[in-house]
Amino acid sequence: MDFISELGKRTKFINVALERLLPPVETYPPIIHEAVRYSLFAGGKRLRPVLALASAEILGGNQRDILPAACALELIHTYSLIHDDLPAMDNDDLRRGMPTCHKKYGEAMAILAGDALLTMAFELITLCPVTNVITPASLITVIAEISRASGTAGLVGGQVVDIMSTSSKADEETLDYIHRCKTGAMYRASVRTGALLSGASRKDLDNLTGYAEHLGMAFQIADDILDIVGDEKNIGKPVKSDIKNDKATYPAMYGIEAAGRMAGDQMKRALRSIDGYGEKADFLRELVKFVVNRNH
Amino acid sequence: MDFISELGKRTKFINVALERLLPPVETYPPIIHEAVRYSLFAGGKRLRPVLALASAEILGGNQRDILPAACALELIHTYSLIHDDLPAMDNDDLRRGMPTCHKKYGEAMAILAGDALLTMAFELITLCPVTNVITPASLITVIAEISRASGTAGLVGGQVVDIMSTSSKADEETLDYIHRCKTGAMYRASVRTGALLSGASRKDLDNLTGYAEHLGMAFQIADDILDIVGDEKNIGKPVKSDIKNDKATYPAMYGIEAAGRMAGDQMKRALRSIDGYGEKADFLRELVKFVVNRNH
Repeated sequence: MDFISELGKRTKFINVALERLLPPVETYPPIIHEAVRYSLFAGGKRLRPVLALASAEILGGNQRDILPAACALELIHTYSLIHDDLPAMDNDDLRRGMPTCHKKYGEAMAILAGDALLTMAFELITLCPVTNVITPASLITVIAEISRASGTAGLVGGQVVDIMSTSSKADEETLDYIHRCKTGAMYRASVRTGALLSGASRKDLDNLTGYAEHLGMAFQIADDILDIVGDEKNIGKPVKSDIKNDKATYPAMYGIEAAGRMAGDQMKRALRSIDGYGEKADFLRELVKFVVNRNH
Repeated sequence: MDFISELGKRTKFINVALERLLPPVETYPPIIHEAVRYSLFAGGKRLRPVLALASAEILGGNQRDILPAACALELIHTYSLIHDDLPAMDNDDLRRGMPTCHKKYGEAMAILAGDALLTMAFELITLCPVTNVITPASLITVIAEISRASGTAGLVGGQVVDIMSTSSKADEETLDYIHRCKTGAMYRASVRTGALLSGASRKDLDNLTGYAEHLGMAFQIADDILDIVGDEKNIGKPVKSDIKNDKATYPAMYGIEAAGRMAGDQMKRALRSIDGYGEKADFLRELVKFVVNRNH
Protein backbone atom coordinates (compact mmCIF):
# COMPACT_ATOMS: atom_id res chain seq x y z
CA MET A 1 0.00 0.00 0.00
CA ASP A 2 1.24 3.49 -0.87
CA PHE A 3 0.14 4.87 2.48
CA ILE A 4 0.71 8.55 1.75
CA SER A 5 -1.42 8.49 -1.39
CA GLU A 6 -4.09 6.36 0.30
CA LEU A 7 -4.23 8.79 3.24
CA GLY A 8 -4.40 11.68 0.77
CA LYS A 9 -7.41 10.09 -0.92
CA ARG A 10 -9.18 9.64 2.39
CA THR A 11 -8.36 13.17 3.53
CA LYS A 12 -9.86 14.48 0.31
CA PHE A 13 -13.00 12.38 0.80
CA ILE A 14 -13.44 13.96 4.24
CA ASN A 15 -12.78 17.46 2.89
CA VAL A 16 -15.51 17.06 0.29
CA ALA A 17 -17.93 15.95 3.00
CA LEU A 18 -16.97 18.82 5.30
CA GLU A 19 -17.53 21.28 2.48
CA ARG A 20 -20.99 19.80 1.86
CA LEU A 21 -22.03 19.54 5.52
CA LEU A 22 -20.97 23.02 6.64
CA PRO A 23 -23.26 26.04 6.17
CA PRO A 24 -22.19 28.00 3.05
CA VAL A 25 -19.84 30.87 3.81
CA GLU A 26 -22.45 33.44 2.80
CA THR A 27 -24.87 32.23 5.50
CA TYR A 28 -25.77 35.12 7.78
CA PRO A 29 -23.75 36.30 9.65
CA PRO A 30 -21.02 35.55 7.09
CA ILE A 31 -18.04 36.61 9.22
CA ILE A 32 -18.45 33.68 11.62
CA HIS A 33 -18.79 31.15 8.81
CA GLU A 34 -15.69 32.65 7.23
CA ALA A 35 -13.74 32.30 10.48
CA VAL A 36 -15.01 28.74 10.97
CA ARG A 37 -13.99 27.75 7.46
CA TYR A 38 -10.65 29.55 7.70
CA SER A 39 -9.58 27.29 10.55
CA LEU A 40 -11.36 24.15 9.40
CA PHE A 41 -9.88 24.24 5.90
CA ALA A 42 -6.36 25.31 6.95
CA GLY A 43 -5.06 21.87 6.05
CA GLY A 44 -4.65 18.95 8.36
CA LYS A 45 -4.76 15.25 7.69
CA ARG A 46 -8.27 14.73 9.12
CA LEU A 47 -6.91 11.86 11.21
CA ARG A 48 -9.95 11.66 13.47
CA PRO A 49 -12.57 11.25 10.72
CA VAL A 50 -10.15 8.98 8.85
CA LEU A 51 -9.91 6.81 11.97
CA ALA A 52 -13.69 6.64 12.28
CA LEU A 53 -14.08 5.56 8.67
CA ALA A 54 -11.18 3.07 8.83
CA SER A 55 -12.79 1.53 11.86
CA ALA A 56 -16.08 1.18 9.95
CA GLU A 57 -14.15 -0.28 7.02
CA ILE A 58 -12.78 -3.10 9.17
CA LEU A 59 -16.23 -3.98 10.50
CA GLY A 60 -18.07 -3.68 7.18
CA GLY A 61 -19.91 -0.48 8.15
CA ASN A 62 -21.27 2.02 5.63
CA GLN A 63 -18.62 4.73 5.49
CA ARG A 64 -20.77 7.17 3.56
CA ASP A 65 -23.61 7.04 6.09
CA ILE A 66 -21.38 7.74 9.06
CA LEU A 67 -19.65 10.70 7.40
CA PRO A 68 -21.54 13.37 9.39
CA ALA A 69 -20.43 11.80 12.69
CA ALA A 70 -16.88 11.40 11.38
CA CYS A 71 -16.80 15.06 10.32
CA ALA A 72 -18.11 16.10 13.75
CA LEU A 73 -14.85 14.79 15.21
CA GLU A 74 -12.85 17.14 12.98
CA LEU A 75 -15.03 20.10 14.00
CA ILE A 76 -14.30 19.38 17.65
CA HIS A 77 -10.59 19.00 16.94
CA THR A 78 -10.56 22.35 15.11
CA TYR A 79 -12.50 24.10 17.89
CA SER A 80 -9.95 22.86 20.44
CA LEU A 81 -7.05 24.16 18.33
CA ILE A 82 -8.66 27.59 17.96
CA HIS A 83 -9.30 27.94 21.70
CA ASP A 84 -5.89 26.50 22.66
CA ASP A 85 -4.16 29.06 20.43
CA LEU A 86 -5.87 32.05 22.13
CA PRO A 87 -3.71 34.63 23.91
CA ALA A 88 -5.12 33.60 27.29
CA MET A 89 -4.08 29.99 26.60
CA ASP A 90 -1.00 29.02 24.54
CA ASN A 91 -0.86 32.39 22.74
CA ASP A 92 0.21 30.98 19.37
CA ASP A 93 0.41 33.21 16.30
CA LEU A 94 0.89 30.46 13.74
CA ARG A 95 -0.87 27.18 13.04
CA ARG A 96 0.10 25.07 10.03
CA GLY A 97 2.16 27.98 8.75
CA MET A 98 -0.76 30.42 8.76
CA PRO A 99 -1.95 33.07 11.20
CA THR A 100 -4.10 31.51 13.92
CA CYS A 101 -7.83 32.29 13.94
CA HIS A 102 -7.58 35.11 16.51
CA LYS A 103 -4.65 36.66 14.64
CA LYS A 104 -6.79 36.78 11.51
CA TYR A 105 -10.27 37.52 12.91
CA GLY A 106 -9.64 38.89 16.39
CA GLU A 107 -10.11 37.23 19.74
CA ALA A 108 -13.88 37.61 20.05
CA MET A 109 -14.53 36.00 16.68
CA ALA A 110 -12.03 33.21 17.39
CA ILE A 111 -13.77 32.35 20.66
CA LEU A 112 -17.11 32.34 18.85
CA ALA A 113 -15.75 30.30 15.92
CA GLY A 114 -14.63 27.65 18.40
CA ASP A 115 -18.01 27.74 20.13
CA ALA A 116 -19.75 27.44 16.76
CA LEU A 117 -17.67 24.44 15.69
CA LEU A 118 -18.25 22.61 18.97
CA THR A 119 -22.00 23.24 18.75
CA MET A 120 -22.20 22.31 15.07
CA ALA A 121 -20.41 19.05 15.77
CA PHE A 122 -23.34 17.77 17.79
CA GLU A 123 -25.81 18.95 15.18
CA LEU A 124 -23.85 17.07 12.50
CA ILE A 125 -24.08 13.76 14.36
CA THR A 126 -27.87 14.03 14.29
CA LEU A 127 -27.70 14.17 10.48
CA CYS A 128 -26.51 10.58 10.05
CA PRO A 129 -29.26 8.69 8.20
CA VAL A 130 -31.00 6.08 10.32
CA THR A 131 -30.48 2.55 8.97
CA ASN A 132 -30.57 -0.98 10.35
CA VAL A 133 -27.13 -0.44 11.86
CA ILE A 134 -27.14 3.31 12.51
CA THR A 135 -30.05 3.44 14.95
CA PRO A 136 -31.12 6.47 16.98
CA ALA A 137 -29.90 4.53 20.03
CA SER A 138 -26.43 4.03 18.54
CA LEU A 139 -26.29 7.72 17.65
CA ILE A 140 -27.11 8.60 21.26
CA THR A 141 -24.27 6.32 22.39
CA VAL A 142 -21.94 8.09 19.97
CA ILE A 143 -23.01 11.51 21.25
CA ALA A 144 -22.37 10.37 24.83
CA GLU A 145 -18.99 8.99 23.78
CA ILE A 146 -17.89 12.12 21.92
CA SER A 147 -19.14 14.56 24.55
CA ARG A 148 -17.29 12.66 27.29
CA ALA A 149 -14.10 12.61 25.21
CA SER A 150 -14.36 16.36 24.63
CA GLY A 151 -15.29 17.43 28.15
CA THR A 152 -13.55 17.68 31.51
CA ALA A 153 -12.66 13.97 31.40
CA GLY A 154 -11.07 14.49 27.96
CA LEU A 155 -10.01 17.44 25.81
CA VAL A 156 -11.01 20.19 28.24
CA GLY A 157 -9.55 18.36 31.26
CA GLY A 158 -6.29 17.79 29.40
CA GLN A 159 -6.00 21.43 28.43
CA VAL A 160 -6.74 22.55 32.01
CA VAL A 161 -3.95 20.40 33.44
CA ASP A 162 -1.67 21.37 30.55
CA ILE A 163 -1.92 25.12 31.11
CA MET A 164 -1.53 24.68 34.87
CA SER A 165 1.58 22.57 34.64
CA THR A 166 3.72 24.41 32.11
CA SER A 167 6.72 23.41 34.10
CA SER A 168 9.11 20.55 33.42
CA LYS A 169 8.47 19.60 37.03
CA ALA A 170 5.18 17.86 36.16
CA ASP A 171 5.34 14.21 37.24
CA GLU A 172 4.90 11.18 34.96
CA GLU A 173 1.30 10.74 35.97
CA THR A 174 0.42 14.31 35.04
CA LEU A 175 2.20 14.02 31.71
CA ASP A 176 0.30 10.81 30.92
CA TYR A 177 -2.97 12.44 31.94
CA ILE A 178 -2.43 15.45 29.69
CA HIS A 179 -1.63 13.35 26.66
CA ARG A 180 -4.30 10.75 27.31
CA CYS A 181 -6.86 13.55 27.48
CA LYS A 182 -5.61 15.94 24.82
CA THR A 183 -4.94 13.41 22.08
CA GLY A 184 -5.92 9.96 23.28
CA ALA A 185 -9.51 10.67 24.23
CA MET A 186 -10.49 11.93 20.79
CA TYR A 187 -8.61 9.20 18.92
CA ARG A 188 -10.42 6.71 21.09
CA ALA A 189 -13.79 8.38 20.48
CA SER A 190 -13.09 8.50 16.74
CA VAL A 191 -12.40 4.80 16.42
CA ARG A 192 -15.33 3.95 18.67
CA THR A 193 -17.67 6.22 16.69
CA GLY A 194 -16.87 4.28 13.52
CA ALA A 195 -17.25 0.99 15.35
CA LEU A 196 -20.47 1.83 17.19
CA LEU A 197 -22.10 2.97 13.95
CA SER A 198 -21.05 -0.27 12.23
CA GLY A 199 -22.67 -2.64 14.70
CA ALA A 200 -19.40 -3.60 16.43
CA SER A 201 -19.40 -6.55 18.82
CA ARG A 202 -18.09 -5.98 22.32
CA LYS A 203 -14.83 -7.69 21.34
CA ASP A 204 -14.36 -5.59 18.19
CA LEU A 205 -14.98 -2.47 20.23
CA ASP A 206 -12.37 -3.51 22.79
CA ASN A 207 -9.77 -4.32 20.14
CA LEU A 208 -10.24 -1.08 18.27
CA THR A 209 -10.29 0.91 21.51
CA GLY A 210 -6.94 -0.63 22.45
CA TYR A 211 -5.57 0.28 19.04
CA ALA A 212 -6.71 3.89 19.42
CA GLU A 213 -5.31 4.31 22.92
CA HIS A 214 -1.85 3.12 21.89
CA LEU A 215 -2.01 5.12 18.68
CA GLY A 216 -2.78 8.24 20.71
CA MET A 217 0.20 7.70 23.00
CA ALA A 218 2.50 6.91 20.08
CA PHE A 219 1.35 10.05 18.30
CA GLN A 220 1.87 12.29 21.28
CA ILE A 221 5.34 11.00 22.13
CA ALA A 222 6.36 11.34 18.46
CA ASP A 223 4.94 14.87 18.45
CA ASP A 224 6.97 15.84 21.50
CA ILE A 225 10.12 14.45 19.86
CA LEU A 226 9.39 16.28 16.60
CA ASP A 227 9.11 19.55 18.48
CA ILE A 228 12.77 19.10 19.43
CA VAL A 229 14.35 17.49 16.38
CA GLY A 230 11.91 18.59 13.67
CA ASP A 231 12.37 21.15 10.92
CA GLU A 232 10.24 24.29 11.26
CA LYS A 233 9.49 24.31 7.52
CA ASN A 234 8.07 20.78 7.57
CA ILE A 235 5.99 21.19 10.71
CA GLY A 236 4.51 24.58 9.82
CA LYS A 237 4.89 25.99 13.30
CA PRO A 238 7.87 27.11 15.36
CA VAL A 239 9.84 24.17 16.78
CA LYS A 240 11.17 24.00 20.30
CA SER A 241 7.98 25.76 21.44
CA ASP A 242 7.58 23.14 24.19
CA ILE A 243 10.96 24.04 25.62
CA LYS A 244 10.24 27.76 25.25
CA ASN A 245 6.91 27.32 27.06
CA ASP A 246 8.43 24.94 29.60
CA LYS A 247 5.88 22.28 28.67
CA ALA A 248 5.89 18.83 30.20
CA THR A 249 6.94 16.39 27.43
CA TYR A 250 8.16 12.82 27.14
CA PRO A 251 11.65 13.71 25.87
CA ALA A 252 12.02 16.25 28.70
CA MET A 253 11.01 13.64 31.24
CA TYR A 254 12.77 10.53 29.88
CA GLY A 255 15.33 11.80 27.36
CA ILE A 256 14.99 11.62 23.58
CA GLU A 257 16.18 8.05 23.16
CA ALA A 258 13.96 6.55 25.81
CA ALA A 259 11.02 8.55 24.44
CA GLY A 260 11.75 7.12 20.98
CA ARG A 261 11.66 3.60 22.40
CA MET A 262 8.39 4.36 24.17
CA ALA A 263 6.81 5.51 20.92
CA GLY A 264 7.97 2.28 19.25
CA ASP A 265 6.54 0.24 22.09
CA GLN A 266 3.16 1.97 21.84
CA MET A 267 3.19 1.31 18.10
CA LYS A 268 3.74 -2.41 18.68
CA ARG A 269 0.89 -2.55 21.18
CA ALA A 270 -1.40 -0.76 18.73
CA LEU A 271 -0.52 -3.28 16.03
CA ARG A 272 -1.12 -6.20 18.38
CA SER A 273 -4.63 -4.90 19.22
CA ILE A 274 -5.75 -5.34 15.61
CA ASP A 275 -3.78 -8.49 14.91
CA GLY A 276 -6.85 -10.53 14.06
CA TYR A 277 -8.32 -8.39 11.28
CA GLY A 278 -6.22 -9.42 8.29
CA GLU A 279 -5.83 -7.23 5.25
CA LYS A 280 -8.79 -5.03 6.10
CA ALA A 281 -6.72 -3.53 8.91
CA ASP A 282 -3.69 -2.73 6.74
CA PHE A 283 -4.52 0.96 6.59
CA LEU A 284 -4.70 1.27 10.38
CA ARG A 285 -1.38 -0.62 10.59
CA GLU A 286 0.33 1.73 8.18
CA LEU A 287 -1.22 4.68 9.98
CA VAL A 288 0.38 3.97 13.33
CA LYS A 289 3.75 3.37 11.66
CA PHE A 290 3.38 6.67 9.81
CA VAL A 291 2.50 8.53 13.00
CA VAL A 292 5.64 7.30 14.75
CA ASN A 293 8.03 7.76 11.81
CA ARG A 294 6.74 11.00 10.23
CA ASN A 295 8.91 14.08 10.10
CA HIS A 296 6.07 16.62 10.17
CA MET B 1 -51.31 31.30 42.09
CA ASP B 2 -48.51 32.87 44.09
CA PHE B 3 -46.24 32.99 41.09
CA ILE B 4 -43.05 34.03 42.87
CA SER B 5 -43.22 31.19 45.35
CA GLU B 6 -44.21 28.71 42.64
CA LEU B 7 -41.27 29.83 40.49
CA GLY B 8 -39.00 29.57 43.53
CA LYS B 9 -40.11 25.96 44.07
CA ARG B 10 -39.38 25.09 40.46
CA THR B 11 -36.03 26.86 40.50
CA LYS B 12 -35.08 24.84 43.56
CA PHE B 13 -36.17 21.59 41.88
CA ILE B 14 -33.83 22.39 38.97
CA ASN B 15 -31.00 23.34 41.29
CA VAL B 16 -31.22 20.00 43.07
CA ALA B 17 -31.10 18.21 39.72
CA LEU B 18 -28.14 20.30 38.51
CA GLU B 19 -26.26 19.48 41.69
CA ARG B 20 -26.91 15.77 41.16
CA LEU B 21 -26.15 15.71 37.43
CA LEU B 22 -22.89 17.68 37.52
CA PRO B 23 -19.57 15.98 38.29
CA PRO B 24 -18.63 16.53 41.96
CA VAL B 25 -16.35 19.52 42.50
CA GLU B 26 -13.48 17.26 43.58
CA THR B 27 -13.44 15.46 40.21
CA TYR B 28 -10.00 15.78 38.64
CA PRO B 29 -9.02 18.42 37.62
CA PRO B 30 -10.97 20.17 40.41
CA ILE B 31 -10.25 23.76 39.31
CA ILE B 32 -12.41 23.44 36.18
CA HIS B 33 -15.30 21.89 38.08
CA GLU B 34 -15.01 24.68 40.62
CA ALA B 35 -15.15 27.32 37.87
CA VAL B 36 -18.09 25.57 36.19
CA ARG B 37 -20.02 25.41 39.46
CA TYR B 38 -19.10 28.98 40.42
CA SER B 39 -20.92 30.30 37.36
CA LEU B 40 -23.67 27.71 37.24
CA PHE B 41 -24.69 28.21 40.87
CA ALA B 42 -24.35 32.00 40.92
CA GLY B 43 -28.12 32.35 41.12
CA GLY B 44 -30.50 32.77 38.25
CA LYS B 45 -34.11 31.76 37.89
CA ARG B 46 -33.41 28.73 35.65
CA LEU B 47 -36.03 30.03 33.22
CA ARG B 48 -34.97 27.70 30.40
CA PRO B 49 -35.27 24.43 32.33
CA VAL B 50 -38.41 25.78 34.00
CA LEU B 51 -39.87 26.41 30.54
CA ALA B 52 -39.02 22.89 29.40
CA LEU B 53 -40.70 21.35 32.44
CA ALA B 54 -43.74 23.65 32.24
CA SER B 55 -44.17 22.64 28.64
CA ALA B 56 -44.07 18.96 29.64
CA GLU B 57 -46.55 19.72 32.43
CA ILE B 58 -49.10 21.04 29.94
CA LEU B 59 -48.79 17.97 27.74
CA GLY B 60 -48.73 15.41 30.56
CA GLY B 61 -45.05 14.54 30.11
CA ASN B 62 -42.86 13.08 32.84
CA GLN B 63 -40.99 16.07 34.27
CA ARG B 64 -38.55 13.98 36.27
CA ASP B 65 -37.44 11.96 33.26
CA ILE B 66 -36.71 14.99 31.12
CA LEU B 67 -34.69 16.77 33.83
CA PRO B 68 -31.28 16.01 32.25
CA ALA B 69 -32.35 17.62 28.97
CA ALA B 70 -33.90 20.56 30.84
CA CYS B 71 -30.69 21.06 32.82
CA ALA B 72 -28.66 20.94 29.60
CA LEU B 73 -30.41 24.16 28.56
CA GLU B 74 -29.16 25.90 31.70
CA LEU B 75 -25.61 24.69 31.08
CA ILE B 76 -25.71 26.20 27.59
CA HIS B 77 -27.15 29.45 28.94
CA THR B 78 -24.37 29.64 31.55
CA TYR B 79 -21.65 28.88 29.00
CA SER B 80 -22.93 31.72 26.81
CA LEU B 81 -22.88 34.16 29.74
CA ILE B 82 -19.30 33.19 30.67
CA HIS B 83 -18.03 33.65 27.12
CA ASP B 84 -20.06 36.84 26.53
CA ASP B 85 -18.54 38.39 29.67
CA LEU B 86 -14.94 37.79 28.51
CA PRO B 87 -12.66 40.82 27.98
CA ALA B 88 -12.57 40.17 24.22
CA MET B 89 -16.39 40.27 24.14
CA ASP B 90 -18.51 42.44 26.47
CA ASN B 91 -15.75 42.76 29.09
CA ASP B 92 -18.05 42.60 32.10
CA ASP B 93 -16.65 42.40 35.63
CA LEU B 94 -19.90 41.66 37.41
CA ARG B 95 -22.69 39.17 36.84
CA ARG B 96 -25.56 38.86 39.31
CA GLY B 97 -23.60 41.06 41.71
CA MET B 98 -20.56 38.76 41.75
CA PRO B 99 -17.24 38.80 39.89
CA THR B 100 -17.60 37.18 36.46
CA CYS B 101 -15.92 33.82 35.86
CA HIS B 102 -12.79 35.28 34.26
CA LYS B 103 -12.45 37.86 37.05
CA LYS B 104 -12.46 35.04 39.57
CA TYR B 105 -10.58 32.26 37.71
CA GLY B 106 -8.71 34.03 34.93
CA GLU B 107 -9.47 34.16 31.24
CA ALA B 108 -8.10 30.76 30.26
CA MET B 109 -10.15 28.93 32.86
CA ALA B 110 -13.26 30.95 31.96
CA ILE B 111 -12.95 30.00 28.30
CA LEU B 112 -12.51 26.36 29.31
CA ALA B 113 -15.38 26.48 31.81
CA GLY B 114 -17.65 27.69 29.00
CA ASP B 115 -16.36 24.96 26.69
CA ALA B 116 -16.90 22.37 29.42
CA LEU B 117 -20.48 23.48 30.07
CA LEU B 118 -21.39 23.43 26.38
CA THR B 119 -19.90 19.97 25.97
CA MET B 120 -21.48 18.62 29.14
CA ALA B 121 -24.87 19.87 28.00
CA PHE B 122 -24.91 17.38 25.14
CA GLU B 123 -23.73 14.59 27.40
CA LEU B 124 -26.56 15.37 29.83
CA ILE B 125 -29.22 15.00 27.16
CA THR B 126 -28.05 11.45 26.50
CA LEU B 127 -28.74 10.63 30.16
CA CYS B 128 -32.53 10.95 29.86
CA PRO B 129 -34.01 7.52 30.53
CA VAL B 130 -35.59 5.91 27.47
CA THR B 131 -39.34 5.37 27.93
CA ASN B 132 -42.37 4.96 25.66
CA VAL B 133 -42.40 8.72 25.11
CA ILE B 134 -38.72 9.60 25.50
CA THR B 135 -37.35 7.52 22.63
CA PRO B 136 -33.79 7.64 21.30
CA ALA B 137 -35.29 9.21 18.16
CA SER B 138 -36.96 12.01 20.15
CA LEU B 139 -33.69 12.62 22.00
CA ILE B 140 -31.89 12.96 18.66
CA THR B 141 -34.53 15.50 17.58
CA VAL B 142 -33.96 17.42 20.81
CA ILE B 143 -30.18 17.40 20.30
CA ALA B 144 -30.67 18.73 16.76
CA GLU B 145 -33.05 21.38 18.11
CA ILE B 146 -30.76 22.54 20.90
CA SER B 147 -27.59 22.53 18.81
CA ARG B 148 -29.28 24.63 16.13
CA ALA B 149 -30.58 27.08 18.72
CA SER B 150 -27.08 27.42 20.20
CA GLY B 151 -25.10 27.67 16.98
CA THR B 152 -24.59 30.25 14.26
CA ALA B 153 -28.34 30.34 13.57
CA GLY B 154 -28.98 31.06 17.26
CA LEU B 155 -26.92 32.05 20.30
CA VAL B 156 -23.55 32.27 18.53
CA GLY B 157 -25.00 34.11 15.51
CA GLY B 158 -26.77 36.58 17.80
CA GLN B 159 -23.60 37.31 19.73
CA VAL B 160 -21.61 37.76 16.50
CA VAL B 161 -24.03 40.37 15.18
CA ASP B 162 -24.30 41.95 18.63
CA ILE B 163 -20.58 42.58 19.04
CA MET B 164 -20.31 43.84 15.47
CA SER B 165 -23.14 46.34 15.79
CA THR B 166 -22.47 48.04 19.10
CA SER B 167 -23.77 51.21 17.61
CA SER B 168 -27.20 52.74 17.98
CA LYS B 169 -27.19 52.89 14.21
CA ALA B 170 -28.19 49.23 13.88
CA ASP B 171 -31.44 48.96 11.93
CA GLU B 172 -34.66 47.35 13.16
CA GLU B 173 -33.99 44.13 11.34
CA THR B 174 -30.56 43.74 12.98
CA LEU B 175 -31.99 44.47 16.41
CA ASP B 176 -34.71 41.86 15.90
CA TYR B 177 -32.14 39.35 14.67
CA ILE B 178 -29.89 39.84 17.71
CA HIS B 179 -32.72 39.40 20.17
CA ARG B 180 -34.36 36.55 18.32
CA CYS B 181 -31.03 34.71 18.35
CA LYS B 182 -29.64 35.65 21.75
CA THR B 183 -32.79 35.07 23.81
CA GLY B 184 -35.54 33.80 21.56
CA ALA B 185 -33.77 30.79 20.10
CA MET B 186 -33.04 29.19 23.46
CA TYR B 187 -36.50 29.94 24.90
CA ARG B 188 -37.93 28.32 21.81
CA ALA B 189 -35.62 25.31 22.12
CA SER B 190 -36.49 25.00 25.83
CA VAL B 191 -40.21 24.85 25.29
CA ARG B 192 -39.80 22.50 22.34
CA THR B 193 -37.49 20.21 24.32
CA GLY B 194 -40.17 19.75 26.94
CA ALA B 195 -42.82 19.25 24.28
CA LEU B 196 -40.82 16.84 22.09
CA LEU B 197 -40.01 14.66 25.09
CA SER B 198 -43.70 14.60 26.07
CA GLY B 199 -45.02 13.25 22.78
CA ALA B 200 -46.39 16.61 21.60
CA SER B 201 -48.66 16.68 18.56
CA ARG B 202 -47.75 18.96 15.69
CA LYS B 203 -50.37 21.44 16.85
CA ASP B 204 -49.16 21.46 20.46
CA LEU B 205 -45.64 22.01 19.24
CA ASP B 206 -46.74 24.95 17.10
CA ASN B 207 -48.71 26.56 19.92
CA LEU B 208 -45.92 26.24 22.44
CA THR B 209 -43.37 27.44 19.91
CA GLY B 210 -45.47 30.57 19.32
CA TYR B 211 -45.67 31.13 23.06
CA ALA B 212 -41.89 30.83 23.41
CA GLU B 213 -41.13 33.17 20.53
CA HIS B 214 -43.32 35.94 21.92
CA LEU B 215 -42.06 35.32 25.44
CA GLY B 216 -38.50 35.75 24.18
CA MET B 217 -39.29 39.06 22.50
CA ALA B 218 -41.23 40.31 25.55
CA PHE B 219 -38.34 39.34 27.81
CA GLN B 220 -35.73 41.08 25.71
CA ILE B 221 -37.65 44.31 25.30
CA ALA B 222 -38.35 44.37 29.05
CA ASP B 223 -34.67 43.70 29.70
CA ASP B 224 -33.64 46.62 27.51
CA ILE B 225 -36.07 48.89 29.35
CA LEU B 226 -34.83 47.69 32.75
CA ASP B 227 -31.28 48.56 31.76
CA ILE B 228 -32.45 52.16 31.53
CA VAL B 229 -35.02 52.54 34.32
CA GLY B 230 -33.92 49.72 36.66
CA ASP B 231 -32.22 49.93 40.01
CA GLU B 232 -28.64 48.62 40.08
CA LYS B 233 -29.20 46.92 43.46
CA ASN B 234 -32.15 44.91 42.17
CA ILE B 235 -30.59 43.88 38.89
CA GLY B 236 -27.19 42.89 40.31
CA LYS B 237 -25.24 44.46 37.48
CA PRO B 238 -24.51 48.03 36.46
CA VAL B 239 -27.47 49.70 34.76
CA LYS B 240 -27.23 51.85 31.68
CA SER B 241 -24.52 49.49 30.40
CA ASP B 242 -26.31 49.32 27.04
CA ILE B 243 -26.02 53.08 26.64
CA LYS B 244 -22.41 53.03 27.84
CA ASN B 245 -21.60 50.28 25.31
CA ASP B 246 -23.70 51.94 22.62
CA LYS B 247 -25.76 48.76 22.23
CA ALA B 248 -28.71 48.50 19.88
CA THR B 249 -31.85 48.28 22.06
CA TYR B 250 -35.60 48.66 21.65
CA PRO B 251 -35.89 51.79 23.82
CA ALA B 252 -32.99 53.39 21.92
CA MET B 253 -34.68 52.59 18.61
CA TYR B 254 -38.34 53.31 19.45
CA GLY B 255 -38.32 55.31 22.68
CA ILE B 256 -39.20 53.94 26.14
CA GLU B 257 -42.95 54.26 25.84
CA ALA B 258 -43.25 52.58 22.47
CA ALA B 259 -40.91 49.83 23.67
CA GLY B 260 -43.16 49.31 26.70
CA ARG B 261 -46.17 48.95 24.41
CA MET B 262 -44.26 46.46 22.25
CA ALA B 263 -43.44 44.32 25.30
CA GLY B 264 -47.13 44.35 26.26
CA ASP B 265 -48.13 43.37 22.74
CA GLN B 266 -45.68 40.44 22.71
CA MET B 267 -47.09 39.34 26.06
CA LYS B 268 -50.62 39.30 24.65
CA ARG B 269 -49.52 37.25 21.68
CA ALA B 270 -47.75 34.79 23.97
CA LEU B 271 -50.93 34.41 26.02
CA ARG B 272 -53.02 33.90 22.91
CA SER B 273 -50.77 31.08 21.72
CA ILE B 274 -51.64 28.97 24.77
CA ASP B 275 -55.27 30.02 25.02
CA GLY B 276 -56.61 26.51 24.60
CA TYR B 277 -54.79 24.78 27.47
CA GLY B 278 -56.94 25.79 30.44
CA GLU B 279 -55.58 25.77 33.99
CA LYS B 280 -52.57 23.62 33.14
CA ALA B 281 -51.10 26.62 31.34
CA ASP B 282 -51.54 29.05 34.23
CA PHE B 283 -47.89 28.93 35.20
CA LEU B 284 -46.77 29.83 31.65
CA ARG B 285 -49.33 32.66 31.66
CA GLU B 286 -48.05 34.10 34.92
CA LEU B 287 -44.50 33.67 33.67
CA VAL B 288 -44.88 35.94 30.67
CA LYS B 289 -46.64 38.56 32.81
CA PHE B 290 -43.82 38.36 35.33
CA VAL B 291 -41.18 38.73 32.63
CA VAL B 292 -42.77 41.91 31.33
CA ASN B 293 -43.56 43.48 34.70
CA ARG B 294 -40.50 42.46 36.79
CA ASN B 295 -38.17 45.09 38.20
CA HIS B 296 -35.04 42.92 38.21
